Amino acid sequence: MNLDEYLNQRLRLIDEALENLLPDAPDQPGRLREAMRYGVFSGGKRIRPILTLAAAAAVGGNINDALPAACAIELIHAFSLIHDDLPCMDDDDLRRGKPTSHKVFGEATALLAADGLFALAFDTLAHAPESVPDGAVLEAVRILAGATGPAGMVGGQVLDLEAEGKDVTVADVERIHRGKTGALIEAAALIGGIIGGGDKAQIETLGRYGRAIGLAFQIVDDLLESVGDEEKLGKSAQSDLKRRKATYPAVAGVEESARAAERHCQQAAQELSSFEESAEPLRRIARLIVEREV
Amino acid sequence: MNLDEYLNQRLRLIDEALENLLPDAPDQPGRLREAMRYGVFSGGKRIRPILTLAAAAAVGGNINDALPAACAIELIHAFSLIHDDLPCMDDDDLRRGKPTSHKVFGEATALLAADGLFALAFDTLAHAPESVPDGAVLEAVRILAGATGPAGMVGGQVLDLEAEGKDVTVADVERIHRGKTGALIEAAALIGGIIGGGDKAQIETLGRYGRAIGLAFQIVDDLLESVGDEEKLGKSAQSDLKRRKATYPAVAGVEESARAAERHCQQAAQELSSFEESAEPLRRIARLIVEREV
Repeated sequence: MNLDEYLNQRLRLIDEALENLLPDAPDQPGRLREAMRYGVFSGGKRIRPILTLAAAAAVGGNINDALPAACAIELIHAFSLIHDDLPCMDDDDLRRGKPTSHKVFGEATALLAADGLFALAFDTLAHAPESVPDGAVLEAVRILAGATGPAGMVGGQVLDLEAEGKDVTVADVERIHRGKTGALIEAAALIGGIIGGGDKAQIETLGRYGRAIGLAFQIVDDLLESVGDEEKLGKSAQSDLKRRKATYPAVAGVEESARAAERHCQQAAQELSSFEESAEPLRRIARLIVEREV
Repeated sequence: MNLDEYLNQRLRLIDEALENLLPDAPDQPGRLREAMRYGVFSGGKRIRPILTLAAAAAVGGNINDALPAACAIELIHAFSLIHDDLPCMDDDDLRRGKPTSHKVFGEATALLAADGLFALAFDTLAHAPESVPDGAVLEAVRILAGATGPAGMVGGQVLDLEAEGKDVTVADVERIHRGKTGALIEAAALIGGIIGGGDKAQIETLGRYGRAIGLAFQIVDDLLESVGDEEKLGKSAQSDLKRRKATYPAVAGVEESARAAERHCQQAAQELSSFEESAEPLRRIARLIVEREV
């Protein structure tokens, strides 16, 4: 398979579906629609929803059935970025080289646009095609809500804030990562498997795969941030270091971080050994996560 | 029936269920759990979840089946109050006579605690008892997400912000009200009917009932705010007027506002004419909304 072609094709599919969910029609009040679109269409690589589609395909499912769930994952991701960037949180002015939402729309509208994306995510997930059993959709709702809430992303964010400026261990950083980034990436794989009609063992395997690449992803993020250049990242490089954020390179060093990312990536690939050719995209995505430059 | 006894019994039932959802155990990271509890256990009257239970009972359903859904509605309400009070929104220091969440926990933790309650709402709703059909739960997820998002609460909030300081009409104010408060109250009644196993006609009737009392509720809120005293309200009286918020009394006058609330309340009662004795609590709640003093 040609990975670039595959990723581009999936990205177009997802962007088209997101465009249908958030059309550029001024039927919604004021600037809310515009702010929601700004948060969603800002040059993301759609790695999480691509994972959902790839996991659905890996268990023999129809990717069109999984498309609303894939969009729901991306909407949750977009919501979390807007809240993360707010002045009371990371206070970032730039994201992917563009002004952050609150810089463009003001804090109140940015806050509410993110809340709107949060609600739209569950609305979208619950509007799965009729070919997907209600029980599978409901299980996906439970997983997405769990991955977003106090035991997942929100919990990780709080740990992250509380760790700022403190001495932390590798175990602390991994706990933060698992919540902040890992939970949603794991959910993306799990939900794909569930909506795709995978059996219990397959879904558990996808969960372990998702957990492993989730950890690899955040370590690579930290690495890119600590050594990366501003232009590629589209935000101030080393801003984490300046704020004494709990990052993997800060506690384990750059070399050990690179090794850890590689280990997680290899573990993810091993998890997929029971899958045939249909899991090839998942294997390639695992490698991509460690080798990416942005 | 004795309304006070009824309301107290329901409130205890709901508080007990919420306590089980958010136990005071320090297993969650840092102050997140504490902040989530602060937002939920702050002296609310639980009118929305009581409506959900009453609607379920009105269609002959089991109120225990509807209890998770009722809690989900209250969690969404609690989430919305925390975000409303934030400095970038209404910037309120007091809510029900107590310091607002961001005053106690700081802005970042308050923001995230609200996000956590949002996620917990959908997690709770999707964990309905097995006796409730998956299709009904999924329909409830769709309704709650719709009522919370851009076509509901979030949309109403944006309209409300944009109307501040501008000249508005009664129609504008009703549109804001329908989103800001009405959508969730309507959803509370609808979801009770759906989880309770009501038929299509019954559920539509409950939706119209919910819409009518939702409008009455917000008009009475505006009235209490414009004439009320600080002690009873637990927040600065007339703060809406000071900020030139779009309120019903401001556009229609106090007397016409009281008449409009009464009209909506009577319409709500009429909607229930096809229901028997089982809808008595819903009728009494409609009256309570117009006659309440806080």
